[in-house]
Amino acid sequence: MTKQQLFEQITQKNSYLCVGLDTDIKKIPSHLLKEKDPIFEFNRQIIDSTAEFAVAYKPNIAFYEALGAKGWESLQRTIEYIPKECFTIADAKRGDIGNTSGLYARTFFDKSSSGLDFDSVTVAPYMGSDSVMPFLEFEGKWVILLALTSNSGGDDFQNLQVHNTKSSVHYSEKSLYEQVILTSQKWADSDRMMYVVGATKADKLLKIRELAPEHFLLVPGVGAQGGSLEEVSKYGMNQQCGLLVNSSRAIIYASSNEDFAQVAANEAKKVQQEMEKYLQLYS
Amino acid sequence: MTKQQLFEQITQKNSYLCVGLDTDIKKIPSHLLKEKDPIFEFNRQIIDSTAEFAVAYKPNIAFYEALGAKGWESLQRTIEYIPKECFTIADAKRGDIGNTSGLYARTFFDKSSSGLDFDSVTVAPYMGSDSVMPFLEFEGKWVILLALTSNSGGDDFQNLQVHNTKSSVHYSEKSLYEQVILTSQKWADSDRMMYVVGATKADKLLKIRELAPEHFLLVPGVGAQGGSLEEVSKYGMNQQCGLLVNSSRAIIYASSNEDFAQVAANEAKKVQQEMEKYLQLYS
Repeated sequence: MTKQQLFEQITQKNSYLCVGLDTDIKKIPSHLLKEKDPIFEFNRQIIDSTAEFAVAYKPNIAFYEALGAKGWESLQRTIEYIPKECFTIADAKRGDIGNTSGLYARTFFDKSSSGLDFDSVTVAPYMGSDSVMPFLEFEGKWVILLALTSNSGGDDFQNLQVHNTKSSVHYSEKSLYEQVILTSQKWADSDRMMYVVGATKADKLLKIRELAPEHFLLVPGVGAQGGSLEEVSKYGMNQQCGLLVNSSRAIIYASSNEDFAQVAANEAKKVQQEMEKYLQLYS
Repeated sequence: MTKQQLFEQITQKNSYLCVGLDTDIKKIPSHLLKEKDPIFEFNRQIIDSTAEFAVAYKPNIAFYEALGAKGWESLQRTIEYIPKECFTIADAKRGDIGNTSGLYARTFFDKSSSGLDFDSVTVAPYMGSDSVMPFLEFEGKWVILLALTSNSGGDDFQNLQVHNTKSSVHYSEKSLYEQVILTSQKWADSDRMMYVVGATKADKLLKIRELAPEHFLLVPGVGAQGGSLEEVSKYGMNQQCGLLVNSSRAIIYASSNEDFAQVAANEAKKVQQEMEKYLQLYS
């Protein structure tokens, strides 16, 4: 999917909602457990009921691979089922040396190899350029690079002040996550790369927008993780929206009864309506 | 597996060789393609022929998941087949927020969930403490944390000089990878954590040994990636060996003919004999 196509979908739906498919066999409504593939059946109903309000879906790969081979089958059915106009994100946080990252790229982008055909994958930056570039060799596919994450451990390294004593260019002092954003812009433009930016750090969004004015930001922390959608939208939005805001648990587990899909739709619609307002106010 | 059990195996076999099972359907001998599960059949023969010389096996998870569900089945058969005395490493480089890392831990450590039962998993440090701790909740299992990697992109961030302006303790200036080693030692002792250290940086091993004298180091870069086994052994060894040195392609793809398993055994034996010498010289 191109950046323009993504923006057009945002404009059509008046939404930049990404629904996180963190589908846990222990949390889905019990009446689904009699289905042949309960994980897929849950996802199918969630997708049917929310696709009107969401522009992206983000299966969290851990939830599927924790179930071994059959989890990968549920994931494959899910990704095939998601409507083609929706942007799909493999939230996998992969990253390895070049030839191995090439195989991870095949995993998520090459249907003939793995059965999966995502639009994008989340990638960890620690191993640097050659751990990221192989994902970009797949035409039309995106890398969503971890920059600033919203978890408590995010502080351990991402906010350390860094500088490069060996470079002939003297970097001014900045945080590791800022350096990740700067360095990685040499690898791809804003039409192939996005950044993961934790919503609980909305005060940092202004600075990130200075460093990466054109890029989409994937904001994972709104909802159960407690970020403010208005703050994120106010400081994170650019002229092409530039935001995908994820909500997982607050939507998909809004009800644990037989009405779960309808309740999820209501929750998604509420978020979409708030987003419609912010799109008018801030973009 | 405990640290003591690992050390006893090293002493018995006079080896600290880890065989990397980077098994690629495009590279295995063509006569295996007629087998029902060629990937497993290749691994089975490699394991049979090298187990005498190797103390650990390290399937690179990307090679398996690139094949989707059937790749996970080959991985499951492989991990079940590896002799129980050998240390097993899921080279997966995972890492996510706490509850998601908990699911990745289930993937690799909880056989009842995923079918897999590894001794250890490689983890990326970028997301900090809560991305690592869930792996340590599985008793007897190990985290092998990325510190210094041998790939070309490793330089992009791992060697940046860092300091923490917000800490009340003033860190003296150090590299990011050194800070990762220091910070992570608060999370686990050397009986539950190891570090990935790229062999091509053998000159840095002395410094790493100062920071982490007791920890095992997993050195992935000897062989095809060009590190020197003697240099790694001389500067990296401690009194309990403290090294697992991986070789993948140089052993498993030493021959592409029907004799591949025997040729792999010969290569593994050569490395083991060199290791036996270094164990006498340097430990």
